[in-house]
Amino acid sequence: MFRHVVLFTWAEGTTEEQKATVKTELRRLTEIIPEIRAYTLGADAGVNPGNHEFAIVADFDNADDFLVYRDHPEHQAVIAKHIKPIVASRAAVQFTI
Amino acid sequence: MFRHVVLFTWAEGTTEEQKATVKTELRRLTEIIPEIRAYTLGADAGVNPGNHEFAIVADFDNADDFLVYRDHPEHQAVIAKHIKPIVASRAAVQFTI
Repeated sequence: MFRHVVLFTWAEGTTEEQKATVKTELRRLTEIIPEIRAYTLGADAGVNPGNHEFAIVADFDNADDFLVYRDHPEHQAVIAKHIKPIVASRAAVQFTI
Repeated sequence: MFRHVVLFTWAEGTTEEQKATVKTELRRLTEIIPEIRAYTLGADAGVNPGNHEFAIVADFDNADDFLVYRDHPEHQAVIAKHIKPIVASRAAVQFTI
């Protein structure tokens, strides 16, 4: 299994509606991209200080299937339209589990 | 389920032996802390540029069980002895799945 993890902080002034749209649009990808084996996302729970604000953990059979997701036009459209405009910082790792 | 995600970059000069010790010591925690439901970790696969270098994704039944892990003396000892000395940057999110 190949696990993709990405964490975001949002730019100042990002609205709750914009954050909700990111969730909705990303979840929609699970219906479009069959290579996705598991897909979890969520806003930080507020338990620890200094955290990033939003996480995605997505599982694929292998690195090639991750690349299908990464480069999928619908995914790229969500990034361009809904994520890039509100991102302050991003941290990511892909690893084999 | 409550999911804890943390990503690290390592300081310049960190050895492969130090990175391997972090893996071994963290995996040992799964035998010590029964609140851990699932525990995956790994070095970045090198597929994407600009990534962090190491990820941990740990699952718990709830936030309270995560706090048992977070504050467990054996976990804190691994952080103090093996992680803190080599960390350059850290990004984390906890979220409900």
